[in-house]
Amino acid sequence: MTGTTNSYILVTGGAGYIGSHTVVELINHGYNVVIVDNLSNSSYDAVSRVEYIVKKPVPFFNVDLRDSEKLGKVFEQYDISGVIHFAALKAVGESTHIPLKYYDNNVNGTIKLLETMAAHKVKTIVFSSSATVYGDVTRFKDMIPIPEHCPNDPTNPYGKTKYVIENILHDIYNADTTWKSAILRYFNPIGAHPSGLIGEDPLGIPNNLLPYLAQVAIGRREKLSIFGNDYDSHDGTPIRDYIHVVDLAKGHIAALEYLNNVTEGAGLFREWNLGTGKGSTVFDVYHAFCKAVGHELPYEVVGRRDGDVLDLTANATRANTELKWSAEKNIDDACRDLWKWTTDNPKGYAVAGYQWTTLAGTDGDYTSRVHTVTKDDLSVSFLNYGASIQKVEFKNQNLVCGLDTLDEYKSQDIYLGATVGRYANRIANGQFEINGETVKLDKNNGENSLHGGSNGFNKQNFLGPIVKRSADEENLILQFVLVDKAGANGFPGELIAAVEYTVGNDFVEVEYSATTDASGTPVNLTNHSYWNLAGNKSTIDGTQVKLATSKALEVDPNTLIPTGNVSTLDISNLDGKVDNCLIVRESSQINTSSESLVEVLEASHPDSTLVLRVETTEPSFQLYTGDYVDIPGKFGPRCGFCVEPGRLINAVNVEKWKQLVLLDNKSTYGSRTRYSFKLKN
Amino acid sequence: MTGTTNSYILVTGGAGYIGSHTVVELINHGYNVVIVDNLSNSSYDAVSRVEYIVKKPVPFFNVDLRDSEKLGKVFEQYDISGVIHFAALKAVGESTHIPLKYYDNNVNGTIKLLETMAAHKVKTIVFSSSATVYGDVTRFKDMIPIPEHCPNDPTNPYGKTKYVIENILHDIYNADTTWKSAILRYFNPIGAHPSGLIGEDPLGIPNNLLPYLAQVAIGRREKLSIFGNDYDSHDGTPIRDYIHVVDLAKGHIAALEYLNNVTEGAGLFREWNLGTGKGSTVFDVYHAFCKAVGHELPYEVVGRRDGDVLDLTANATRANTELKWSAEKNIDDACRDLWKWTTDNPKGYAVAGYQWTTLAGTDGDYTSRVHTVTKDDLSVSFLNYGASIQKVEFKNQNLVCGLDTLDEYKSQDIYLGATVGRYANRIANGQFEINGETVKLDKNNGENSLHGGSNGFNKQNFLGPIVKRSADEENLILQFVLVDKAGANGFPGELIAAVEYTVGNDFVEVEYSATTDASGTPVNLTNHSYWNLAGNKSTIDGTQVKLATSKALEVDPNTLIPTGNVSTLDISNLDGKVDNCLIVRESSQINTSSESLVEVLEASHPDSTLVLRVETTEPSFQLYTGDYVDIPGKFGPRCGFCVEPGRLINAVNVEKWKQLVLLDNKSTYGSRTRYSFKLKN
Repeated sequence: MTGTTNSYILVTGGAGYIGSHTVVELINHGYNVVIVDNLSNSSYDAVSRVEYIVKKPVPFFNVDLRDSEKLGKVFEQYDISGVIHFAALKAVGESTHIPLKYYDNNVNGTIKLLETMAAHKVKTIVFSSSATVYGDVTRFKDMIPIPEHCPNDPTNPYGKTKYVIENILHDIYNADTTWKSAILRYFNPIGAHPSGLIGEDPLGIPNNLLPYLAQVAIGRREKLSIFGNDYDSHDGTPIRDYIHVVDLAKGHIAALEYLNNVTEGAGLFREWNLGTGKGSTVFDVYHAFCKAVGHELPYEVVGRRDGDVLDLTANATRANTELKWSAEKNIDDACRDLWKWTTDNPKGYAVAGYQWTTLAGTDGDYTSRVHTVTKDDLSVSFLNYGASIQKVEFKNQNLVCGLDTLDEYKSQDIYLGATVGRYANRIANGQFEINGETVKLDKNNGENSLHGGSNGFNKQNFLGPIVKRSADEENLILQFVLVDKAGANGFPGELIAAVEYTVGNDFVEVEYSATTDASGTPVNLTNHSYWNLAGNKSTIDGTQVKLATSKALEVDPNTLIPTGNVSTLDISNLDGKVDNCLIVRESSQINTSSESLVEVLEASHPDSTLVLRVETTEPSFQLYTGDYVDIPGKFGPRCGFCVEPGRLINAVNVEKWKQLVLLDNKSTYGSRTRYSFKLKN
Repeated sequence: MTGTTNSYILVTGGAGYIGSHTVVELINHGYNVVIVDNLSNSSYDAVSRVEYIVKKPVPFFNVDLRDSEKLGKVFEQYDISGVIHFAALKAVGESTHIPLKYYDNNVNGTIKLLETMAAHKVKTIVFSSSATVYGDVTRFKDMIPIPEHCPNDPTNPYGKTKYVIENILHDIYNADTTWKSAILRYFNPIGAHPSGLIGEDPLGIPNNLLPYLAQVAIGRREKLSIFGNDYDSHDGTPIRDYIHVVDLAKGHIAALEYLNNVTEGAGLFREWNLGTGKGSTVFDVYHAFCKAVGHELPYEVVGRRDGDVLDLTANATRANTELKWSAEKNIDDACRDLWKWTTDNPKGYAVAGYQWTTLAGTDGDYTSRVHTVTKDDLSVSFLNYGASIQKVEFKNQNLVCGLDTLDEYKSQDIYLGATVGRYANRIANGQFEINGETVKLDKNNGENSLHGGSNGFNKQNFLGPIVKRSADEENLILQFVLVDKAGANGFPGELIAAVEYTVGNDFVEVEYSATTDASGTPVNLTNHSYWNLAGNKSTIDGTQVKLATSKALEVDPNTLIPTGNVSTLDISNLDGKVDNCLIVRESSQINTSSESLVEVLEASHPDSTLVLRVETTEPSFQLYTGDYVDIPGKFGPRCGFCVEPGRLINAVNVEKWKQLVLLDNKSTYGSRTRYSFKLKN
């Protein structure tokens, strides 16, 4: 941890390949980060996944650097101590066809960035340059491995933009020697984050060896073309310096810290190669990737490419010695990580059947995203806000109550569609005992604590989601995560809670899991969707139910806390008020996920052909007919009914039930519930 | 004439030193020109003077190239066939201190220009580059004189911006070979337009030899510093290639025509040096300039300057052979022209006691300029519109009727303050005979033609003014000019009419002159100011006058055309209606300017301490008490009185008077009138 507490590093292009990996490393090193990216060639999904990896929100602004007004506002809003500048168009071939766009985006964008920095007295910058600035180094004798003093002569517009920007930074330093500029000249970045969550997501046909090879492996391209095998290398193919993107990312932290350690008041302009210093041939890389994949991949040797030369390996000595940085991963590591990224994300960040937008009136607010997955007749929408279910549409009939704007969600207090936590249902007197001590919670329900307190999970923005296909490719999976800080609503210990939704042809399954750093903290998670099977009717009156159990917890009618007795609830419709905890089975586990799903309820309505079936691994479920709903203009009493599988009410204060809800730092909380839909027989 | 009729050449930076000279040459070669310039380092006065030189209005837009929206509008408004791109910051030393401003202004400005060109399918550009791109050519052997193939390595931000722009243009050509780019690398531009009307106007301390020397000569700097006299040249001082700015300007026309002659559908990217190919030492230039000035100028030899090298002479062969262009002027010519420019404009375009603004509500409309000169107690304002007198303020009392907006001027029909022409007063039946033929004019006064017809000089925008001090430095001179096309209002022949105002401590004198290409055309010019000496009163009632003559032309009361008889007007005040032509003296000349001024009238008012005295070289004057004025909300009847010296009414139709007004292409029309102001005795 070397970042300062209140200041931020602005990362331009932080949604891109190298940018996203660098943001992860920055945060891992204790820096605060704010990202600006115009998403012209990248996806917000990368940012969302970075947040998921680092378990923190990362402020993001969809800003083009050339929009000085918008960029200036970011500098006003955050105390920015330095900039890492990735944002650029970067395809060499494309740059020869649309050079003006490259100069405008890269050079002009940088000029505007530097103007804004200067206006806000931010004078520290790490610049994403490229070995491309060296041009054809074979014009010199003995210039390989390439040292930083090698004269520059870029041979394409992309490389020229990098060269010009280096010059601008140099000229700025000459004019004001308090500027600190680190020029990082990348060699060939490869690989992906070991998590498989972020990686390179090239649009169109990849230009580079490994992304191309990955697409061959995944079946998107037929075969690899190897351009010439008659070079003077051990296997006849050209030699390049491939560097793992995580190593490259770490180089930026090393450079930033080098700049931060420059004598107070002094500045610096200096270039560093970021490469391994070790060359690999095309065949070396090919074989390493085949090893990662597990079998040989088709290739064809074709003629040499114009402009290709035998060897472009970095002399990385300057970075090794000055920045105390060197590449730690090899091409096997990179190939393994790339293959995981590729198999986990065969189409990059895009997932067929998934798309997101934002809630009405919140354009540009990424916390208000609505994630919609569609599988045949089923379309389900989720929010980051409360990891909520906003919409479940089966055969064109919406089955849950949902709202349209984030303000509506924030101003309601009925847990509409939300994940309920840390502790669903009531904790008597808002307190419990652990290790002989009394822990006092936020009381938000008379004397009780209800649904985790007044600032529960339902009001939190979950990170993510990670969206992917299931292993069998059949279902779509969305993974949200929330880091609930120690002490939130009075609960001891930090809780990392994951909510994973799986959407199939005719079901939504939710799996909860949670871990804590506390020696004991109560957890009980559920979903609070209001179901309505009556077509577009505003009440559930007439809903027919088949309950798997009639065993209910008897509760004190004043406190709604179980008395210890068991009562009977024997109903076949929801025409009366119901708010009962029904007992499904005996259980003593903190993690029920490995249990088999048991049906607890089937519901239907005479006015519709659809049937809802709820199954769970949980020992009990609350059934509630929504009699206290009052969202003016939207929903009134009995607009929907809730089926909330979970642990027994107030279990944390009942000795024999305590083990059901008390999570420690050696265990993982877990449960699963599935909502299925079908036509009536 | 090689320019096409309806298309325009857009000249960016056309108000600058080289830009303004190039605009003159373009127009001289038949091109239509539209100028854009942000005037950040130049003056609209240069454009105004260019118009004066070429005797044509030149559309001008105060637009920063980085403002794509405004720039795009210029491209929409004009059919632009090509661009000559000068606009740039250009001080080498300054560029090392504020490099970002240089990159933003020069590179970004060019990117935006090129984007706008591309959007409008304009792909022809002549780019103002610099020999600075070569850097220190002494790093090579045998690279002097410098050929275009000399590798580039600029050593300062200014030079780098030029280098980057050359690269951008080259890359654009590579991407789309229908682009035509001429890169002109200037050596050392010197001199000024031989007219002395436009030249280099450096802000602050000049960086270059000749502008500095000129300021020494004019007394603004003490002495010239010569940086080293121990170089290996004939006199020990360094050798440079000095090129007359008019030669340089012509190089742009040669380049443009070369581009225009490229095979249809093909493009070009090519660099040309614009230099003389002949080197001159600092002492060579020094001696040439001293010769122009007529005496030796103080200098001091000091140490060599960092970065200076012995010889930077162009190899101009490529431009000589390909563009069929070569420098025609030598350093003696340049020194002579520079000295004329310097002595005519000792402070460049700025003139102490003069400033201009625009009429209310017409910000950015350069045709609505108001030119105000102030001499002690006298402040006089003039308009381009009608070369009118808008305001005469003596001892804080305004003495003429004037309006505030251009719309007000355009909508009135009383010739308020205006120059009246081509023919002041009436021409009977709107016709006259010449060479046995009857010429019919525009009848705008019953059967007569009055004051030049319905679209007379009073409704024309005059070009200029050229503003300068008189030879004795005492008075301020403003020169307007109008080219009145052949056939305008029916008059034969083109008339070039000049209106020169001289403002002294206590007078405004106007001198008219005119030439024509016709064998005969009638001319009679005067000024139609409405004088009011009654303080802020709305009528002239009570005004006392002393007339130098009581001899008046008798007129037919119906036609107001002289009968041939002489009547008597004997008045001492203006309390009655007066509209009479009074005869001052016998005259038979088309040009009375060399006559001595004769007093014709003195006027004063009991409510004011001021006296107006009118003197003229003219044979007669119309005295009019403004009884028909009606400008609602502004001026009513008798708001002012007019004193209009000129030729006798309808002289063109009276045989014995004809020679007074009939101008041929061998003569110059001329007259002078002076309005003086004093306190009552």
